[in-house]
Amino acid sequence: MTRTGFDLALEELHNDLLRMGSIVEKQIHQCMEALVKQDEELAQQIIKNDDLVDKLNRDIEDKCIKLTAKEQPLARDLRTIFTTTKLVTDLERMADYAVDIAKITLRLKNEKYIKELIDIPKMAVMVNSMIKSSLDAYVAADVENAYAACKLDDEIDELYKNIFNELLTIASKDLKNVNQITQLLFVCKYLERIADHATNICEWTIYLVTGEQKDLNE
Amino acid sequence: MTRTGFDLALEELHNDLLRMGSIVEKQIHQCMEALVKQDEELAQQIIKNDDLVDKLNRDIEDKCIKLTAKEQPLARDLRTIFTTTKLVTDLERMADYAVDIAKITLRLKNEKYIKELIDIPKMAVMVNSMIKSSLDAYVAADVENAYAACKLDDEIDELYKNIFNELLTIASKDLKNVNQITQLLFVCKYLERIADHATNICEWTIYLVTGEQKDLNE
Repeated sequence: MTRTGFDLALEELHNDLLRMGSIVEKQIHQCMEALVKQDEELAQQIIKNDDLVDKLNRDIEDKCIKLTAKEQPLARDLRTIFTTTKLVTDLERMADYAVDIAKITLRLKNEKYIKELIDIPKMAVMVNSMIKSSLDAYVAADVENAYAACKLDDEIDELYKNIFNELLTIASKDLKNVNQITQLLFVCKYLERIADHATNICEWTIYLVTGEQKDLNE
Repeated sequence: MTRTGFDLALEELHNDLLRMGSIVEKQIHQCMEALVKQDEELAQQIIKNDDLVDKLNRDIEDKCIKLTAKEQPLARDLRTIFTTTKLVTDLERMADYAVDIAKITLRLKNEKYIKELIDIPKMAVMVNSMIKSSLDAYVAADVENAYAACKLDDEIDELYKNIFNELLTIASKDLKNVNQITQLLFVCKYLERIADHATNICEWTIYLVTGEQKDLNE
C-alpha cells in the first residue's frame, strides 16, 4: 500500500466513523420518539438495530487492526488508528444507552405519563448536537471545535440536574408513580452519560492532534 | 528490542493491568464500606484515588502505543496490545462507577438508612470476584475460565433485579425516603454495569486467543 493508499484507508475509517455516528444519533433520536409516543414497535426496532451498531463497531476495529499490521504506522497515523478504536467504544456505548431507553419505553408502555415529556427530549436534542459536533471536530482534527463541543456538556449537565430534581420532587408527593418516575430518572442519567461519551470524543481529538491526554469529564 | 524484550514488555503490561485491576477492586470494596458506614472521609478518599486509576490508564495506553510503534507487532502480539488498550477502558469505567457510588454516599451521609444494607454489599462482593476472575482469565489467556467468569454475571443480574424490585416496593410506600431509595437504585445499577464491564474483559480474552469477537453481554 502506498502512502496514498494509507490515506485512503484512513479516509474510509473516517467515513465509517461518521456513518456509525449518524446511526447512533438516529437511535438516540428515535428512542426519544418511542418514549414520548409510547411507541412499542419503534422501541423494539431500536433494540434490533443495535446489532448493526455492534457490527459496525467490530468491522471498524477489525480494519484498524489489519491496517496496523499491514502499514505499521507511526506517530499521528498510529494515533489516528488508536483513537478510532477508542471512539467506536464510545459510540457503541452511546447506542447501548439508546437501547436501555427503548427498554424503559417498553416497561412504561401501558402507563399514563405523570406529565408531558418536554425537557427530556430537549436534553436528547442537545446530546445529539454534541455528538455531531464532537465527531465533526474529530474527523477534521480540529482541537478548537473539540473544546467548543465539550462546552455543551455543561448545559446538558445543568438541564439534567433540573429535570432530576423536578422528578424527585414529584416522586416525593406521588406514591402511585414511583416506578415511572424512577424509570424516567434513569432515562435522564443515560442521556447525561451519552454526553460524557461525546466528551470523550473531544478528548480523543485533542490527543490525536497534540498527543496529550486531557480529562475534560470533570 | 529482541523477541525476549518484547515478551518482557508484554509481561510488564500484564503486571500493570493486574495492578490497575487490584486498585479498581479496592475502590469498589471501599466504596461499599463507605456507603454502609456512611464514612464521608473514606468516600472523599475514593474520589481522590480515581486520579491514580486515570493515570495508570493513560500510562498503559501510552506504553501500548509506544510498543506498537517500536515493535510493529503482528497477529496475537498485536491483539494483546489492542485488547490491553480496550481492557483499561473497562477498568477505568468500573473505577468511575466506584466514584459515582462514593458521591452517592456523600449525598446520603446525613440520612438514616431505611434498612440495613446487606444485599448491595453482597452484590459488590460478587462483582469484585467477577473482576478478579475475568482479569486472571485474560492474563492467563484462558478462554474456558473467561466463559466461567462470565457466568457470574447471571447471578449478579438476578440479585440486581431482586434488590431493585424490593427497593421499588419500599419506595411506593414511603414518601419520605424516595430520594434515598432512588440513590440506592443507582448504586445497584452501577454495580450491575461494573459486572457488564467485567464481561467485556471476558470477551477480550476470547478475542485475544481466538481472534473472534463475541458478544456475551446479552
